[in-house]
Amino acid sequence: MEKIYLDNAATTFPKPPQVAQAVYRYMTQQGANIGRGCYDSAYQVEELVFETRQLLCRLFHGPDPRSVVFTKNVTESLNVLLKGLLRPGDHVIVSSMEHNAVMRPLVQLEKQGCSFSRAACSAGGTLLPGALEACLQPNTRAVVMTHASNVCGALMPAAQVGAFCRAHHLLFILDSAQTAGTWPVDMQAMSIDALAFTGHKGLLGPQGTGGFLLAEGMEGRLEPLLSGGTGSMSHSEEAPAFLPDRFEAGTLNLPGILGLREGLLWLQETGLDRVREHELALTGRFLQGLAPLEAQGLLRVFGPRGLESRTGVVSLQVLTRELAQAAYELDARYGIMTRVGLHCAPSAHKTLGTFPTGTIRFSFGWWNTPGQVDAALEALEAICRQAP
Amino acid sequence: MEKIYLDNAATTFPKPPQVAQAVYRYMTQQGANIGRGCYDSAYQVEELVFETRQLLCRLFHGPDPRSVVFTKNVTESLNVLLKGLLRPGDHVIVSSMEHNAVMRPLVQLEKQGCSFSRAACSAGGTLLPGALEACLQPNTRAVVMTHASNVCGALMPAAQVGAFCRAHHLLFILDSAQTAGTWPVDMQAMSIDALAFTGHKGLLGPQGTGGFLLAEGMEGRLEPLLSGGTGSMSHSEEAPAFLPDRFEAGTLNLPGILGLREGLLWLQETGLDRVREHELALTGRFLQGLAPLEAQGLLRVFGPRGLESRTGVVSLQVLTRELAQAAYELDARYGIMTRVGLHCAPSAHKTLGTFPTGTIRFSFGWWNTPGQVDAALEALEAICRQAP
Repeated sequence: MEKIYLDNAATTFPKPPQVAQAVYRYMTQQGANIGRGCYDSAYQVEELVFETRQLLCRLFHGPDPRSVVFTKNVTESLNVLLKGLLRPGDHVIVSSMEHNAVMRPLVQLEKQGCSFSRAACSAGGTLLPGALEACLQPNTRAVVMTHASNVCGALMPAAQVGAFCRAHHLLFILDSAQTAGTWPVDMQAMSIDALAFTGHKGLLGPQGTGGFLLAEGMEGRLEPLLSGGTGSMSHSEEAPAFLPDRFEAGTLNLPGILGLREGLLWLQETGLDRVREHELALTGRFLQGLAPLEAQGLLRVFGPRGLESRTGVVSLQVLTRELAQAAYELDARYGIMTRVGLHCAPSAHKTLGTFPTGTIRFSFGWWNTPGQVDAALEALEAICRQAP
Repeated sequence: MEKIYLDNAATTFPKPPQVAQAVYRYMTQQGANIGRGCYDSAYQVEELVFETRQLLCRLFHGPDPRSVVFTKNVTESLNVLLKGLLRPGDHVIVSSMEHNAVMRPLVQLEKQGCSFSRAACSAGGTLLPGALEACLQPNTRAVVMTHASNVCGALMPAAQVGAFCRAHHLLFILDSAQTAGTWPVDMQAMSIDALAFTGHKGLLGPQGTGGFLLAEGMEGRLEPLLSGGTGSMSHSEEAPAFLPDRFEAGTLNLPGILGLREGLLWLQETGLDRVREHELALTGRFLQGLAPLEAQGLLRVFGPRGLESRTGVVSLQVLTRELAQAAYELDARYGIMTRVGLHCAPSAHKTLGTFPTGTIRFSFGWWNTPGQVDAALEALEAICRQAP
């Protein structure tokens, strides 16, 4: 049975072959630590890491390669940004579609005297007009928002939100976990002050990579959540003031970063637009195939119906069968890998009206084909029609 | 020119071949995320990750495989432990030999109302008798200590420190960055409440891996420094209360962990004792060769002279040449890779009397040979004798 991987929103698979090759090459041939050794191979690796920062800076239109900070994942990035920035008394606005990578840190911060409001979103998962304004308070300091829902693929109007933040003197923190590498994310055009990214989804790097970029001057406003040896300012027991060292304590995931570098190079060569068009074409085909099944009451689709405001993530509920069982059969009987449940985003499911049951999520990537979409549709129909 | 890698205290190199092979295999053949997907390959990877926890639990004599938490590096582990545990008004005792991975978080915590005292160490880097007692205060909550100096290899008496902590109702947090995988580290015999480890040194895994183990009941005393999606308790916006999920937010470095698993299996097969004996034999040979050079006033060695209380890390100052230049020539002219400077441990260098100049550090590993030690000695002598 051919396996069909439709869980690209969790991690893209496969990756371009050169990603794993670069990791393997580094681990077997270079292996050195950087910023620490005084030998040639350490400098060579340092250069490749800097190149990776340059690629990310260019991709996201950041201020400077040094403003690219590596972390282990976007969750760490969001924790560092939120907990480094917010002080007791501060208020932030989030959308009602956020992942727990945003919500759990905020609920922790709430216990320390911060507060937050959820800007209302439609039942399709998109930000409602006027929702941000309605949340404004005198102590509002920032808007923190996902660029697209990891549950239903709804895109948030990042540029508009950025302009709103600029107009109201708020900081704008964007979580690009679901869009980086597939949708344009432009720190300057979108007025983003801090951009959190993951390395192992659209950027096609290995798991264990991620990071954030800061707009100019932001580093001074953030207390480092993690501190320690940086290989710089080693005479001092305080974290360095400069980027990226201020936020990069301890040994970096060097094999991971060199793998990410290859993912970024592949992306640069292939072109974001081509990747996005491919994913949207598959998504359109899938949505089109779901429509008659939905009309027959076999399942229900959540999130935006049109392709103009969505990513390649589709959530649905099978109405004739138990959800987890349906997802299990998709894999066991048809080799179709999806993800079922709440996708670490209870707030989003409450917005969509799918809490606490959750949904089965299908997410497409560059290596998926129209034939795989059709196979998923056929399997879904068969499962829906089968007596439980 | 044969390259001779003597920077194993920064990261061991090479690793057993199966480490990079496992990383490559995972990235090209499995690739799935865990705790999130509902498909077969996700479960298989989950099992391998659990096996890695079992191996670590056995190695460190921890309470339960679930008490093993993965982080990106030991610096993150120490931040999570210190910042998760300490509250304003708390006091901790450290040795005067600590790495900035301990000192920088503590200096940050000091600004929030915590305090710390440095227990005095000898000029050789070993804890002085009575030093801990002298630091005790009514509000002392914990002792945080490295198991061995990353600068000069001095071993700390972990079991004695653990007994001291037990007697005074203090928590004992041990930083095993320089010993795990080479020296016995036993949470129960040493009364360790929280053990921080790195994956890419003695445990022979890839960079980007590390973690900590908690003694029973400790998880409730620690507020998670990083929170977010865990693939568990997804209906809730609070971090789960149970281990390891409480401290593992976001996607894990799965390729790294599967590589670490191979390092641990290699270690289990080879035997800690054999690795240690090999490293100490090389260290003894090196120290013996340094003695006449030191007697001639060409260089000065720091740290313990005997092998009974040290690891395979040797620090020295060349007295006839500029230090950084000597280290540079070691690599450029003789292919010998070392590390020069303060090694992210200013406190240790102050203790040894080598601040702010620093030292050249040689650190041996399993793949080094007696011939390489001799080559390093010859190169050192030549550099010392050469006119600047």
